[in-house]
Amino acid sequence: MSAHEHAFACPFPVIDDCLQVGGVPLTRLTERVGRTPFYAYDRRLISERVALLRRHLPETVRLHYAIKANPMPALVSYMAGLVDGLDVASAGELRVALDSGMAPAEISFAGPGKREEELRQAIAAGILVNVESFREARVLVRLSEELGLPARVAVRVNPDFELKSSGAKMSGGPKPFGVDAEKVPALLHEIGALGLAFEGFHIFAGSQSLRAEAIVETQVKAYELAVRLAREAPGPVKVLNIGGGFGIPYFPGEQPLELVPIGRNLAALAERLRRDLPAARLVLELGRYLVGEAGIYVCRVIDRKESRGHVFLVTDGGLHHHLSASGNFGQVIRKNYPVVVGNRVRGTRRETVSVVGPLCTPLDLLADRMELAEAHPGDLIVIFQSGAYGLTASPTAFLSHPAPGEVLV
Amino acid sequence: MSAHEHAFACPFPVIDDCLQVGGVPLTRLTERVGRTPFYAYDRRLISERVALLRRHLPETVRLHYAIKANPMPALVSYMAGLVDGLDVASAGELRVALDSGMAPAEISFAGPGKREEELRQAIAAGILVNVESFREARVLVRLSEELGLPARVAVRVNPDFELKSSGAKMSGGPKPFGVDAEKVPALLHEIGALGLAFEGFHIFAGSQSLRAEAIVETQVKAYELAVRLAREAPGPVKVLNIGGGFGIPYFPGEQPLELVPIGRNLAALAERLRRDLPAARLVLELGRYLVGEAGIYVCRVIDRKESRGHVFLVTDGGLHHHLSASGNFGQVIRKNYPVVVGNRVRGTRRETVSVVGPLCTPLDLLADRMELAEAHPGDLIVIFQSGAYGLTASPTAFLSHPAPGEVLV
Repeated sequence: MSAHEHAFACPFPVIDDCLQVGGVPLTRLTERVGRTPFYAYDRRLISERVALLRRHLPETVRLHYAIKANPMPALVSYMAGLVDGLDVASAGELRVALDSGMAPAEISFAGPGKREEELRQAIAAGILVNVESFREARVLVRLSEELGLPARVAVRVNPDFELKSSGAKMSGGPKPFGVDAEKVPALLHEIGALGLAFEGFHIFAGSQSLRAEAIVETQVKAYELAVRLAREAPGPVKVLNIGGGFGIPYFPGEQPLELVPIGRNLAALAERLRRDLPAARLVLELGRYLVGEAGIYVCRVIDRKESRGHVFLVTDGGLHHHLSASGNFGQVIRKNYPVVVGNRVRGTRRETVSVVGPLCTPLDLLADRMELAEAHPGDLIVIFQSGAYGLTASPTAFLSHPAPGEVLV
Repeated sequence: MSAHEHAFACPFPVIDDCLQVGGVPLTRLTERVGRTPFYAYDRRLISERVALLRRHLPETVRLHYAIKANPMPALVSYMAGLVDGLDVASAGELRVALDSGMAPAEISFAGPGKREEELRQAIAAGILVNVESFREARVLVRLSEELGLPARVAVRVNPDFELKSSGAKMSGGPKPFGVDAEKVPALLHEIGALGLAFEGFHIFAGSQSLRAEAIVETQVKAYELAVRLAREAPGPVKVLNIGGGFGIPYFPGEQPLELVPIGRNLAALAERLRRDLPAARLVLELGRYLVGEAGIYVCRVIDRKESRGHVFLVTDGGLHHHLSASGNFGQVIRKNYPVVVGNRVRGTRRETVSVVGPLCTPLDLLADRMELAEAHPGDLIVIFQSGAYGLTASPTAFLSHPAPGEVLV
């Protein structure tokens, strides 16, 4: 495997050189959706991903879905039947979580800047609030009194370590997330004194890591930190959310995450938990890892242009729908996502082309000098690894084009 | 002026240490809007910017506004009374342009991937279409016949030069924008043979340049290229759009663009135009330069957190509303936009803080270690230079927070 090739193993079948999504040929699915561009998510792939995890994880570990990765209501409702809980990051996500039918007891809310209206809605819903500051604890007490309902709280901890080699470091050093580990004992005392219903800890160190050993190391550290902090807690720890951080391979040279060492480590931690914190459930919170590889973005070639020896496929989709694939969402160096011509995956002739969108900016680039089957106007371009942080992480109003479709198949 | 300081001269008055927008104190404006976060654009500053340009430009140069920079309908309607034409990049923008009352004759449409429905709408509206490929010319002919209306066309040229030191290079080398200069004669003959109504050229070389000499050089080259190409045209050139590219200073060390050399050069070009292309109007197409400095983004401090010696102001606004200010929209190195505490601009105590948003990601950073007046929950954070590529260039659905407000004051 060269560092310039995608390690990506396409999870979507190809029949008669046409990609199949949820058992439907892409050309037919496009007619069913009625327009391009659109996002499509495959139920079967989501179920298979959850089943794969369950096989590797000890039975006692509870699996949560972080809605922020993909809040499409139909997808969240489907996911609610597969996982043990949902995690939300706003009142908007909370509404989707509650609509899905997931029990409020199994929904938790994290975020460094929760508005007072959001905290009020969370208390009324009966979900678990991950407290991220002293101020938030005091606001919760006041709102609990106003509503006559006890706020259920866990403490989100900003640990003094980080998830190594992760895509986004969420801890270690000064951070706006959670409360510094060294200040947590004081917060726990305050929570006890204020009479909030304490239920546990949330320790999240980073995201999008492809190194199992880094995740294992972080999970052990998070576990041990929680056990130390539990000594100061006003009550037994019922929930220990050690975050997620499981990455998926996007770019050439990246390899899928190995689950075996992670499963083995979690089995050992689950065993220690039974002695250290016997009332606690260990929670794993995953977003991207559950849905990222189950989704594609589909757009149609509008024009095929040759400019100074280079072929451009100009499509009706672009960065306004899929900012990450364009390489413009916080990436320092632009790399290609895996891309194919969906209705002619292998093709008869291959060529090196760039795929661009309809926007008047050189940023609107979906594939830079990739080898694809020869494509013409009307053909369908597919971007893989698009099930997470796709549609909602994109500036859909940019240049006032229509919003893309979105289907669960 | 140190490279670490903003050269930015605040165009909004400050009275009693409170920023004034459109003559209204920011605190009162916030009550009027009824919520935070919001964008506010100042009519007076937009008018002043247009007047400044008019003073420097020769009378015969026509000034167009590129709606993509800020498509807020009220702003576009206001702008329609100040400029000579509007440029759109989609059917969505076309609707806003027509609603503004601007005469269709003065509206033009550019974009490398115009959909057939969009071209149909453009012909029906009677606006000028900047043709960007041979295929587009043929589609326009067919649609003209179907509609029984002639398509008005100009040719968008991909020149063989670029705008030096610009934020986004739109020309030179292989590009999806327009037709390579060397292929334009063939396209002009085809346009003549097909019977489309030829009106001129659109030559756009780049955007966001702060160097007047680079803009001058590019304008001269675009002019001379157009005069050469005009010899092959099937009719007289009526419109010569030489683009824009005028930048505004965002970051420490950047200086405002000097208009004097640009105005002098355009006067010389306008003089040459009278001899070379006597039927042609010279059009300058500007977006960001007209509105960027007239707009602010306002959010409210929700929490003030100290983490390991560092102060974070956590606000209700963030990258989901203002991606560029967070440094995540195609920027390689993150730099701070100019920021103040709007209701306490100078303050009594100053401190170095970071301003972050409510999202669970370290990317959600609005100001990194800046000196501001000491601020607390309830205070208003203002980000300047936010009138262009703000709201519509942001992933507003990210983490399902409410959309921001938007007002023209």
